[in-house]
Amino acid sequence: MSSRRPDHVLVIGAGLMGTSVALALVRAGVEVLLDDPDPAHLRVAVSLGAGTPMSSTGPDAARAGTGDVDEVGLVVVSVPPAVLGTVIAEALVRFPGAIVTDLGSVKAATLDDVTARAPDHLDRYVGGHPMAGSEQSGPLAARADLFDGRAWAVTPHLRSRPDAVEAVEGLAHTCGAFAVSMTPAEHDEAVALVSHLPQVASSVVAGLLTTGAEGHLVLAGQGLRDVTRIAAGDPALWSQILSANAEPVARLLHEAAEHLHRIAVTLEKTEPGMPGAGDLRRSLERGVSGVRRLPGKHGMRPEPFASVPVLLPDRPGELARLFADVGRAGVNIEDVRIDHSPGTPAGLVQLAVHPDAVPALLEALEQHGWAVHG
Amino acid sequence: MSSRRPDHVLVIGAGLMGTSVALALVRAGVEVLLDDPDPAHLRVAVSLGAGTPMSSTGPDAARAGTGDVDEVGLVVVSVPPAVLGTVIAEALVRFPGAIVTDLGSVKAATLDDVTARAPDHLDRYVGGHPMAGSEQSGPLAARADLFDGRAWAVTPHLRSRPDAVEAVEGLAHTCGAFAVSMTPAEHDEAVALVSHLPQVASSVVAGLLTTGAEGHLVLAGQGLRDVTRIAAGDPALWSQILSANAEPVARLLHEAAEHLHRIAVTLEKTEPGMPGAGDLRRSLERGVSGVRRLPGKHGMRPEPFASVPVLLPDRPGELARLFADVGRAGVNIEDVRIDHSPGTPAGLVQLAVHPDAVPALLEALEQHGWAVHG
Repeated sequence: MSSRRPDHVLVIGAGLMGTSVALALVRAGVEVLLDDPDPAHLRVAVSLGAGTPMSSTGPDAARAGTGDVDEVGLVVVSVPPAVLGTVIAEALVRFPGAIVTDLGSVKAATLDDVTARAPDHLDRYVGGHPMAGSEQSGPLAARADLFDGRAWAVTPHLRSRPDAVEAVEGLAHTCGAFAVSMTPAEHDEAVALVSHLPQVASSVVAGLLTTGAEGHLVLAGQGLRDVTRIAAGDPALWSQILSANAEPVARLLHEAAEHLHRIAVTLEKTEPGMPGAGDLRRSLERGVSGVRRLPGKHGMRPEPFASVPVLLPDRPGELARLFADVGRAGVNIEDVRIDHSPGTPAGLVQLAVHPDAVPALLEALEQHGWAVHG
Repeated sequence: MSSRRPDHVLVIGAGLMGTSVALALVRAGVEVLLDDPDPAHLRVAVSLGAGTPMSSTGPDAARAGTGDVDEVGLVVVSVPPAVLGTVIAEALVRFPGAIVTDLGSVKAATLDDVTARAPDHLDRYVGGHPMAGSEQSGPLAARADLFDGRAWAVTPHLRSRPDAVEAVEGLAHTCGAFAVSMTPAEHDEAVALVSHLPQVASSVVAGLLTTGAEGHLVLAGQGLRDVTRIAAGDPALWSQILSANAEPVARLLHEAAEHLHRIAVTLEKTEPGMPGAGDLRRSLERGVSGVRRLPGKHGMRPEPFASVPVLLPDRPGELARLFADVGRAGVNIEDVRIDHSPGTPAGLVQLAVHPDAVPALLEALEQHGWAVHG
């Protein structure tokens, strides 16, 4: 992995992702030019300090920027999936001295598209995909720290130049991320599994909630909320992403559908009140194994944190008081979940800590009168 | 809804749920007798202060308790789904002066079972199901506050006596929950949708993670973690719950499978790189509508909280310092999410606040030097 800092970067597309990359680069002292067909987006990004605008046409193109367009060493393309290949190919032709990368969510179809449109310039293109984002969109939601500590997939191909790969890895590093190198096909298989399948499954479960009686949803708990949170994502963007990775996603969706069907058939054969057949239990056990495979905090295996529940009055300052009490005891909180209780003005806070820290935490909570069951 | 406090309650089954009910009742000043075939469970529950043991057989049965067994006014049965109907029927016969309820996750099959086993005592049985729980199990994980502010489904039937319904509503209320009355069939339809479907969908997505290459999982983000969290639940318990509600769950699983298949087929017809067909987008939009139907905090429509991201060094006291700074500004934090960054010793804290509180929050954060993008 290279830590080479890029110089004179042009970011094409000043939405959430492009503007965040620009802000992260400016934070690192890199000179950034910005381009976007939407003048409002461009204006917002510039006003946020994400770089200097570059007029995309006309004789003022060079003069409007911070320097000569010929000085652009790296172009980062961050435009919607439907036009991604076209804009990358145009950038390769327009900036013959520059490395070109993108931030798109799928990589094989994009590479095919670029190969078809700019076959002679392919050696200067290396795809990238930072594993960060937001349910929000647009430059106003951009953040310089969006990529801090995140994985950033870098997808070299057979014809990519080593210095192009190094430049894209350097970009990831400069933005605070760590580069993970894989082929475009590997990348698409991976995100189909870890991102696109859960997205569609979440949407399908959430979609079925539209069929339930209003009164039934009062029984909804935290589990349902967790499973359906990402279903609130932008349908227009997600239908483009899923379409661009159609084959691996369709294969996994068929597989998931088969599993659901099989579990349903097992249930139909079950006598009411009797324990489920071995098949059902094996499906659920497989899920437990899958969860255990997820990397935990800091990219490690999940650590078995202990969870301590504390009842929290719903008024300003209570959370402050709780964390101050805990902080004074020298206990490091690994995770926090606030579970608001429907019908009462109180919330339940789940504090996750290292098992070793539980006694000190309980002592501190008891000492300060927090309602907790030790 | 009645707020009648029950008197002389016998809890049969000292696991997580039964012991939590017992602790909540003791907290409210109710005299509680405990029974469990597992002497270790019983001993732990008693040592937690959840009540007095009642020997389930032999001449010492009455003497071992706090009073005469004839005084038992309410029996709460909290045993595994497979034996639930049997134990309820036995309790109805053994305590002819008592109301009997249970905490089971499905209600229609249980009522059928009780009807078959104790037809002459059915008027004293009313089912219940508190919407609370834990991924943990056993009496050591029990908490007196487990039901505070939660919904507690109460499921009267055609033959249940009004005073029996009132007693079970009083139990819910005394345990800190709010009673939601519905028929057993309505209840089972509701939990199939809001609990059993998401549980199986989560397991299926998590189960497919076992097929992915180890290197692919490094790209996993918070969305996948949320979707698969509940898949870590106990397969033995869940296969019993799902089997006991087989028909409504199977119907929904078939429906979900059909949706997944249909989306997969839509994707297979899509040209790579092109926006998805209207069908795909409509499926995703339906998911957005479903999420919007979920009741929010305090049983209300979800409020559109604003999310403010803050970078947090991973050492003791930082969260305390953050919340103290926020608390002094009089800002009420509605929700918190800590998103640990793989590869770096820092976490990203998402603070959810009322949109009106954002300026005050940003000012407080800036004033105290927190890394946040305003």
